Amino acid sequence: MAPGKKGILERLDAGEIVIGDGGFVFALEKRGYVKAGPWTPEAAAEHPEAVRQLHREFLRAGANVMQTFTFYASDDKLENRGNKLTFTGAQINEAACDLAREVANEGDALVAGGVSQTPSYLSCKSETEVKAIFKKQLDVFIKKNVDFLIAEYFEHVEEAVWAVEVLKETGKPVAASLCIGPEGDMHGVSPAECAVRLVKAGAQIVGINCHFDPMTCVKAVKLMKEGVEKAGLKAHYMVQPLAYHTPDCSCQGFIDLPEFPFGLEPRILTRWDMHKYAREAYNAGIHFIGGCCGFEPYHIRAVAEELALERGFLPTASEKHGNWGAGLEMHTKPWVRARARRDYWENLRPASGRPTCPSMSVPDGWGVTKGHADLMQQKEATSQDQLKQLFDRRSEIKDTEAN
Amino acid sequence: MAPGKKGILERLDAGEIVIGDGGFVFALEKRGYVKAGPWTPEAAAEHPEAVRQLHREFLRAGANVMQTFTFYASDDKLENRGNKLTFTGAQINEAACDLAREVANEGDALVAGGVSQTPSYLSCKSETEVKAIFKKQLDVFIKKNVDFLIAEYFEHVEEAVWAVEVLKETGKPVAASLCIGPEGDMHGVSPAECAVRLVKAGAQIVGINCHFDPMTCVKAVKLMKEGVEKAGLKAHYMVQPLAYHTPDCSCQGFIDLPEFPFGLEPRILTRWDMHKYAREAYNAGIHFIGGCCGFEPYHIRAVAEELALERGFLPTASEKHGNWGAGLEMHTKPWVRARARRDYWENLRPASGRPTCPSMSVPDGWGVTKGHADLMQQKEATSQDQLKQLFDRRSEIKDTEAN
Amino acid sequence: MAPGKKGILERLDAGEIVIGDGGFVFALEKRGYVKAGPWTPEAAAEHPEAVRQLHREFLRAGANVMQTFTFYASDDKLENRGNKLTFTGAQINEAACDLAREVANEGDALVAGGVSQTPSYLSCKSETEVKAIFKKQLDVFIKKNVDFLIAEYFEHVEEAVWAVEVLKETGKPVAASLCIGPEGDMHGVSPAECAVRLVKAGAQIVGINCHFDPMTCVKAVKLMKEGVEKAGLKAHYMVQPLAYHTPDCSCQGFIDLPEFPFGLEPRILTRWDMHKYAREAYNAGIHFIGGCCGFEPYHIRAVAEELALERGFLPTASEKHGNWGAGLEMHTKPWVRARARRDYWENLRPASGRPTCPSMSVPDGWGVTKGHADLMQQKEATSQDQLKQLFDRRSEIKDTEAN
Amino acid sequence: MAPGKKGILERLDAGEIVIGDGGFVFALEKRGYVKAGPWTPEAAAEHPEAVRQLHREFLRAGANVMQTFTFYASDDKLENRGNKLTFTGAQINEAACDLAREVANEGDALVAGGVSQTPSYLSCKSETEVKAIFKKQLDVFIKKNVDFLIAEYFEHVEEAVWAVEVLKETGKPVAASLCIGPEGDMHGVSPAECAVRLVKAGAQIVGINCHFDPMTCVKAVKLMKEGVEKAGLKAHYMVQPLAYHTPDCSCQGFIDLPEFPFGLEPRILTRWDMHKYAREAYNAGIHFIGGCCGFEPYHIRAVAEELALERGFLPTASEKHGNWGAGLEMHTKPWVRARARRDYWENLRPASGRPTCPSMSVPDGWGVTKGHADLMQQKEATSQDQLKQLFDRRSEIKDTEAN
Repeated sequence: MAPGKKGILERLDAGEIVIGDGGFVFALEKRGYVKAGPWTPEAAAEHPEAVRQLHREFLRAGANVMQTFTFYASDDKLENRGNKLTFTGAQINEAACDLAREVANEGDALVAGGVSQTPSYLSCKSETEVKAIFKKQLDVFIKKNVDFLIAEYFEHVEEAVWAVEVLKETGKPVAASLCIGPEGDMHGVSPAECAVRLVKAGAQIVGINCHFDPMTCVKAVKLMKEGVEKAGLKAHYMVQPLAYHTPDCSCQGFIDLPEFPFGLEPRILTRWDMHKYAREAYNAGIHFIGGCCGFEPYHIRAVAEELALERGFLPTASEKHGNWGAGLEMHTKPWVRARARRDYWENLRPASGRPTCPSMSVPDGWGVTKGHADLMQQKEATSQDQLKQLFDRRSEIKDTEAN
Repeated sequence: MAPGKKGILERLDAGEIVIGDGGFVFALEKRGYVKAGPWTPEAAAEHPEAVRQLHREFLRAGANVMQTFTFYASDDKLENRGNKLTFTGAQINEAACDLAREVANEGDALVAGGVSQTPSYLSCKSETEVKAIFKKQLDVFIKKNVDFLIAEYFEHVEEAVWAVEVLKETGKPVAASLCIGPEGDMHGVSPAECAVRLVKAGAQIVGINCHFDPMTCVKAVKLMKEGVEKAGLKAHYMVQPLAYHTPDCSCQGFIDLPEFPFGLEPRILTRWDMHKYAREAYNAGIHFIGGCCGFEPYHIRAVAEELALERGFLPTASEKHGNWGAGLEMHTKPWVRARARRDYWENLRPASGRPTCPSMSVPDGWGVTKGHADLMQQKEATSQDQLKQLFDRRSEIKDTEAN
Repeated sequence: MAPGKKGILERLDAGEIVIGDGGFVFALEKRGYVKAGPWTPEAAAEHPEAVRQLHREFLRAGANVMQTFTFYASDDKLENRGNKLTFTGAQINEAACDLAREVANEGDALVAGGVSQTPSYLSCKSETEVKAIFKKQLDVFIKKNVDFLIAEYFEHVEEAVWAVEVLKETGKPVAASLCIGPEGDMHGVSPAECAVRLVKAGAQIVGINCHFDPMTCVKAVKLMKEGVEKAGLKAHYMVQPLAYHTPDCSCQGFIDLPEFPFGLEPRILTRWDMHKYAREAYNAGIHFIGGCCGFEPYHIRAVAEELALERGFLPTASEKHGNWGAGLEMHTKPWVRARARRDYWENLRPASGRPTCPSMSVPDGWGVTKGHADLMQQKEATSQDQLKQLFDRRSEIKDTEAN
Repeated sequence: MAPGKKGILERLDAGEIVIGDGGFVFALEKRGYVKAGPWTPEAAAEHPEAVRQLHREFLRAGANVMQTFTFYASDDKLENRGNKLTFTGAQINEAACDLAREVANEGDALVAGGVSQTPSYLSCKSETEVKAIFKKQLDVFIKKNVDFLIAEYFEHVEEAVWAVEVLKETGKPVAASLCIGPEGDMHGVSPAECAVRLVKAGAQIVGINCHFDPMTCVKAVKLMKEGVEKAGLKAHYMVQPLAYHTPDCSCQGFIDLPEFPFGLEPRILTRWDMHKYAREAYNAGIHFIGGCCGFEPYHIRAVAEELALERGFLPTASEKHGNWGAGLEMHTKPWVRARARRDYWENLRPASGRPTCPSMSVPDGWGVTKGHADLMQQKEATSQDQLKQLFDRRSEIKDTEAN
């Protein structure tokens, strides 16, 4: 860590807001460096300038955390995805660490090394085998001396607990983030119970990332926080949601939406949606606030701008952004100038420009498309009903996923 | 020009497809380097690495043209926008030329220097004064030896003709592109007549950029082509539209949409929409096909992929893209694997995830919001009616814009 | 005619507004007396109390015209539809005349006998044969001494002209109304030309009914009026549109919408939409203003209320209706009381409560569903394009319809 | 009761399905006989032919219950609404009984006398005073010898219990129906608890009417049934919901929707939606299935058609209705003929034809419009959150309503 920089726990213990970065795989897919489907991060070694530039944009946007671009970079995943790569897993992980450190040094940011769920777990390998996978990635993080560790994007708390147990051995601070919603993990464990297990396993920071829209993720983290507090435990909280509106998701999140992953554009949150998210997260007592798939640098900047008063400063990239549209004040058209104000953007309900498209989709994958459509059209499509459906079909799904 | 590269006219004369790049100001605004409102390109000098990276992404996506990032970089505009800049107009224009050339040299791309409409024209300055403004930017393009010139983003054909006359003096190929729709320019001159005037002034390539969605722009270029052919003239054609669906626009385009510029997300075209656009443009006889505001690298890649057979090769960035979603073939969930096919994505009607938002907006600025809403809801909102409204209000608008 | 009542031409010549009635087949289908598909009017004889009641409701709502419930009551149609009916065509037509007269006598209304397009024409029978069909229905109207005659719901002006020629022989005033839109009849004859032919054939009133929403129909009648005036002729004008929003219709109107006829509910116009329609029609110089399919009594009342000042009185049924929601003034909830004002209802954009449904359909029947979807999403789905499609497919359609 | 007719309890005890009628005040408002706002039923005396006709249409549609048109016909309500009526409350109530009996005698239907919530309760009058109001209406029902009694449209279970206690004294069967949703009554009493109290007070049939869409009402009745069974009690169940889609309602139901009551058209359920409702209600063990506001005769017919197999016969009005669109089989256009099948209509997602309108509204009346809009856009707008809001604001609302 650069001399004089405070560690992640020091910051959170002091009540500071820590701003996370955004989603690398989706952003780099649009820029041409990641392939949708495999989603592997070989660009860290192949095209370092592209990865460095994205790190830098998030730094300028206000991020205090540079996550190493090592998502799905475990050896079993790289092999599983069937890529013939020029670089080894170790080379990719090392390059990612170097890039994150290089840009972190340009500002007030920490480097976080990340591990995520493994194909080994889904194909029912043993705890020992799964832990060995995590250990291998971890060796690189230790060699490169990252500032803290994140176990993120886990659908099953059991596997996340195993990851935390491995990461804890390093002595570095450990965060654990599941990709679940308020209905709980894929085995039906509630967010509250998941959080308790993760904290007991040693995670100092717990939370949610990916799979659902910001407000849904904040809601799930609230349930985690209630669980932890009820159990008489202590933790910090993090949230890194999608930048997509997903009111029509069921428990597996946006993967099941028919638009995933190539037709999500109409769902992208505006910067003003992000202001609401940042405020809601902060009010919920969540102090590590970032983003996942769909978050572009301007989304993170919006988070930082919403919380500028609390943090005491604006992010660097605000030099290129008027407050609540203030940059429009000098527009030649008076009706465009009239948009240079907070309440205009706060209350705008943006049109999709797609008159033959619905506002809500019928998620795939439940094998009950018509019935589900009905559910969606009716108020009674409650979490509880959907959870029950999940329970009924769980073993089947487990089998399917393992194949 | 790099030895062995064919010039823009050689390519078009030979029937080749020339792929343009995407929109720099909107893309760099989201990355944190351009301020919405002024939209000036000082980033070319301030943050060259960010501009270079975007050029490179468009090159990888298949672009054959690197437009210098000099939009709104005329001295009168830079002053008008009220920025205190560290760099002079000449420095910005020179830096932009160097970046475009550097990346063009990395592949099969040409450098195009661009001028666009001036505040001087809108405030009714003389032809001599307006031409002097163009001349000043042009001096840099000549010094830096760009490969060809584009006069683009003109709302009035009169000013565009003046620009073409100045650019023609250099002896370099000249393209002229208006930001108008099928209803014609802001003085009510039809696309056909606009095109004839531009060709007579010496433009070898004519077309449309910005302000409307792809299909609307293609339609307007078709009208231009018909006009040119009817007049017994010859030209090549170009189109560089928005990457936003704008069925609800009236004649001034997306500026008047209430979502401009900070709430346009739900309107962003998917890559599959871009396939349809590329095919439609090519079928219309337009061979210089690119993008403007909203186009990200993956949008340009989709254009290049749609036309891969005609061009004989895929763009570099297709190494990270499966054909029509083929990258999903190995997904763990069977219903996601089932999306790895052309007809799935061609027929998807993507939901917005925004149930309290309409599909169409009521554009601002006509002072007739209620009546306009009615028009929008009814089929009779024809171009003709709207054009008549425009005529009725034209002098008023001219005054307003000049202020 | 009841002594002292002014005839239809006297009224229109004097500049009076004549309010038509609404749509009997759709209203009685919902009440359980007409079968969708055949749409035949045997209820006039079978269930006279139901038909009488609907007449009475339209009379109370302000209608000055009681159209005999004889739609599709020509002998060839009754047979064609395959019904085994207890009553003969003559009995049905006579009963319908008696009911219309009975209720007309309860107020200031006239009885209009109506003929409409025949299967005989569509199966290419001769002029003589088709005219014989009209003559048979006409015999009943003469026997029952209706006040005037309407030839309505014709898709081909040629057949409408034949009908007018037959009706004219009676000496009674004749109105002629086509079910076409601004694109013209099914042979591609423009509304202007259609109107000229009908006036030359002897119709004193010409206009449009059914198939399109109110604003589209008004637009088409405007084109008729321009044509008649340009030809140096004189006529009165009538309009009796659908009570459904149909912005997505192509030239054959709502028949081609996928929602026809059992899923049109979300498109039903509110009473406030009807105020706009009535004003638009009146401003266009149309003085015989009524409704067709979808019009319920409250829709006609809204027309009468909008024009109450011009007519000098409110309709009887306004005794049960507050002006612009005034009846809500005494509601217990303050926010409901706040809706008791004109601008609230004029500006309301009502939600559908159907989040998985689009706002626009892709009409059936063109065999180009995907391409058509694209057209619908784009602004260039102009009448002209659609007309061209029609021309290309016309002969095929003619064949199909004849089967 | 006509000799040989089975009573309501005999039918339900035998496991028969009893079909209710539809909504009189909304249907007659559209026909011009009821004033929106006061909603009083003086038409029973003023225009008996109109009320008789509507009864007859519901009978033909399959209804086994003719509810006397006595909604809001208590003396305190008639006065409160400020109408100067030609008829006394007793005259209106008596006329309504006669009409219901006359039509019931035409088929297999029973007459039900109904009382509903009173202004006296909302203005905090005593139990004695409120009961006296019910007693007065009841005197007419006894004099006219209705077949059974319904206490319906109560927002507070306390007042409903009082009503049941009064009605029970007659010895006639008593049904009790609240206008609440799954969140419970306006004092926060759950549906389960409400049902238990009503059964203990003596109601033999309990259920829900009005305020919410069919699926929401069925869900609430399910909760009632669970409560009754859990308490070891026995009852029959009824449901008579709105014919409007209301996914965006909060606890007070459709009153708070901005479209209430004059802009609800886009929300009207199709006949096919009614099939789903009827099946869902029957599957939930509800055997008294009818409708409330928005239900037209064809909606009730759809319920009867869905349950024709279970009941053993089709309703009379099905003589004018093809099964699942079968009436279209002879249409001239092949694509319309192609709609004559069940899966077409079951899967149709009907467009609204209103491209500038959203799919969901932001309900009025919570004084938190912006925040509420956010809730609506997000998944976490759960019943629980909304109930909490209600609790927070309950006393305030009570005060407001009393004024």
